[in-house]
Amino acid sequence: MGVTRRTLRLGAFLLTPGYHVASWRHPTARADGGLDFAHYRELLHTAERGRFDMFFVADGVGIRTPYRDADELSRWGRFLQFDPLTLLSALAVHTTHIGLAATASTTYNEPFHIARKFASIDHLSAGRAAWNIVTSVTDAEARNFNRDSQPDHTARYQRAREFMEVVTGLWDSWDDDAFGYDKEAGRYFEPDGMHVLDHKGEHFSVRGPLNVARPPQGYPVLIQAGASADGQDFAARWAEVVFTAAQTLDEARTFYRGMKRQAAAYGRDPGQMKVMPGLFPVVGRTRAEAEDKYAVLQELVDPVVGLGLLTQLLGDVDISGCPLDGPLPELPPTQGSTSRQQLVYDKARREGLTIKELYRSLTGGRGHRIVIGTPEDVADLMEEWFTDEAADGFNVMPPVLPQGLDDFVDLVVPELQRRGLFRTEYESTTLRGNLGLDRPARGAAAELPLSTGPVQVQE
Amino acid sequence: MGVTRRTLRLGAFLLTPGYHVASWRHPTARADGGLDFAHYRELLHTAERGRFDMFFVADGVGIRTPYRDADELSRWGRFLQFDPLTLLSALAVHTTHIGLAATASTTYNEPFHIARKFASIDHLSAGRAAWNIVTSVTDAEARNFNRDSQPDHTARYQRAREFMEVVTGLWDSWDDDAFGYDKEAGRYFEPDGMHVLDHKGEHFSVRGPLNVARPPQGYPVLIQAGASADGQDFAARWAEVVFTAAQTLDEARTFYRGMKRQAAAYGRDPGQMKVMPGLFPVVGRTRAEAEDKYAVLQELVDPVVGLGLLTQLLGDVDISGCPLDGPLPELPPTQGSTSRQQLVYDKARREGLTIKELYRSLTGGRGHRIVIGTPEDVADLMEEWFTDEAADGFNVMPPVLPQGLDDFVDLVVPELQRRGLFRTEYESTTLRGNLGLDRPARGAAAELPLSTGPVQVQE
Repeated sequence: MGVTRRTLRLGAFLLTPGYHVASWRHPTARADGGLDFAHYRELLHTAERGRFDMFFVADGVGIRTPYRDADELSRWGRFLQFDPLTLLSALAVHTTHIGLAATASTTYNEPFHIARKFASIDHLSAGRAAWNIVTSVTDAEARNFNRDSQPDHTARYQRAREFMEVVTGLWDSWDDDAFGYDKEAGRYFEPDGMHVLDHKGEHFSVRGPLNVARPPQGYPVLIQAGASADGQDFAARWAEVVFTAAQTLDEARTFYRGMKRQAAAYGRDPGQMKVMPGLFPVVGRTRAEAEDKYAVLQELVDPVVGLGLLTQLLGDVDISGCPLDGPLPELPPTQGSTSRQQLVYDKARREGLTIKELYRSLTGGRGHRIVIGTPEDVADLMEEWFTDEAADGFNVMPPVLPQGLDDFVDLVVPELQRRGLFRTEYESTTLRGNLGLDRPARGAAAELPLSTGPVQVQE
Repeated sequence: MGVTRRTLRLGAFLLTPGYHVASWRHPTARADGGLDFAHYRELLHTAERGRFDMFFVADGVGIRTPYRDADELSRWGRFLQFDPLTLLSALAVHTTHIGLAATASTTYNEPFHIARKFASIDHLSAGRAAWNIVTSVTDAEARNFNRDSQPDHTARYQRAREFMEVVTGLWDSWDDDAFGYDKEAGRYFEPDGMHVLDHKGEHFSVRGPLNVARPPQGYPVLIQAGASADGQDFAARWAEVVFTAAQTLDEARTFYRGMKRQAAAYGRDPGQMKVMPGLFPVVGRTRAEAEDKYAVLQELVDPVVGLGLLTQLLGDVDISGCPLDGPLPELPPTQGSTSRQQLVYDKARREGLTIKELYRSLTGGRGHRIVIGTPEDVADLMEEWFTDEAADGFNVMPPVLPQGLDDFVDLVVPELQRRGLFRTEYESTTLRGNLGLDRPARGAAAELPLSTGPVQVQE
């Protein structure tokens, strides 16, 4: 095995008590796990034993499930969750190698807070923090922050781009070796090592400097998941990990190549961007056992939840008047996550599904690739996507926790390791070190051209 | 000792590496402690061994020391610090009894984030979270949040009052027993137990509900330190712990009685508000040893820092043209912390101090009471203030860490315990339980009259 051999990256997408919408009703699920630190600590120890690169916390600033009343929301369930930065800080000091990625919105935060909090977690974890940058999707979140609805897609990304300039600028407030704490001379830091940002832009005026030293990783690892034109452009400029959803190898490969090309167009090394699709694995010792496991979960889906989920995936389009046994109608444009809407619509047309068939098919993976089978089946798919350059790795979304993570770590990880696709020991104690990402020098973010929005990329 | 006997409350105000401005230059100081989690963990274990009610993290959203250039800031030093909520989350899972109080500003945050983060820490710590509510003081902080200067005092408190209605309303999103996680029936919660806030006010529109269950303490403990008329009115309505600064017993007693009277005027039980002045103790086995310890610190103060500190305490008033050996001139009104300015000015006049004498006298305690002496001397002062109803307890501000905290825990705490003034074991595992504060029922905050600003209180 050569030193330059490309190996898989794995994220543990541990939406508690499971990624499946009915997960909390499963007999083995920790239904109350969302606010139980001991449950998360156990999951993280399992993921670290499985040599995962990182733990990934999805989040919304509000209850994002669509509901008309308390009764309907009660059927959805599964929305209680610690604030992700609170959770990651506590987990940081209970783990030693696994990366810690939290979602935070550029639409509903101020850049100074975000810069400081992620820098703090990077110091606390000695270099294992990552930020999943989102612009938020639902009007439910907007309504918790002085608005009736989301700003439109373009406006959100304009703010997000300036937000990144400010946050990376604040992380660059100090030279890496600025702080000498010279007691004798009475010099806490070397004066030349301070850099006042003094940003004045369209959305933000932020003077700085940050009251936290430069993060151990330079910048915490930057993750992004937008798949729209704006989202891809943003990822091309900023993301070091791209979290994406793809159903087929072809779709994933097209996306992968497009992303790498767009990163190169920004003057970046495409190898410094890891594309990691979501993967929803239902693992059994036999295929029949795996199918049975999935069937148990599907049986637990409340019909109200199934239809509500489809409505949400379509960007809050009202399809309540459409016959469940008929096809999906043509859809109007929305201000939600337009790329996700398109994926769902394409799937319905490609497979000729009725509305009911469609929501049943989406209940588990919600746009992400589902694989149901033996550890070898799961590893086969991962190897194929990885080898064909459709993925640099995967965000693994266990259907039910802790069982789904145990299955993956105990059954699939050893198979990946046997094939030489995945590490048996961590290479580093930092997330950058494990992901194979360079540590950015101070000022690195400001050196690439500013992004001003999507550009045409030649296929 | 009767069960109703009043006992002291103690907060550990652990500004790392010490409360004294020159602390970081002290030979025993952990100059780099502000970003060292192991250092904080050790301090917390010491404070928990000393049976402190709570650890109290001061904070600013920016570098609040006044400086003209990097050279001057370098002489100040001592400004690196974890984001306090990040730090408390990590400390929560390494401690079992001590309360965890973090400062967060109502001027530069959104109420949904604050409600969620403190609720998360309260769950994470099983009922030990407290929020020190500030409206922020310095223009340096304003400049990190899209402003050139602070909003004026009145505007900040108007926002703060509405902020509290929203935050407590969000904490009341769910009945205490709303979440039953009934897998069989497919009911995550009891629909009647959900309460949508739907707040629409002058500063905020926040719909809710919160995506975190009601905090274990009902509401995290509310702390406030404003001493101006607006600040006192705010504290009277909201604060369960009042952090204050007083130089003399008389001053402390007047403040204490005024606060309790104002709380009663809002219909509150004055016993449910604990007044805790700051105390800066320099402890030696003999008085001479204590004096020597203080002299060592005072010798380390850079003259640039001494004058800068005074300027800051006076609310950024420029006194650079005034002779150091002359008296303080008459001061113009400012938008900063007007109550603190008055305290400093009163002290200068009362003691007939020159500018130089004034800044030297303020370097250590910065407005808080300094006590330099034996453990008995320190306990005598605490006992007198406590017995005379000038204080329900103290926020202890060790000059240098870890030494100053070790001294207090090893020397002063046993003396307080011998006198029957302080606990030898924790009474509870929640902060409310230890402080003797009732757990508020859902809706409790909305039942008291709304505060609309300071009212005249008869002396």
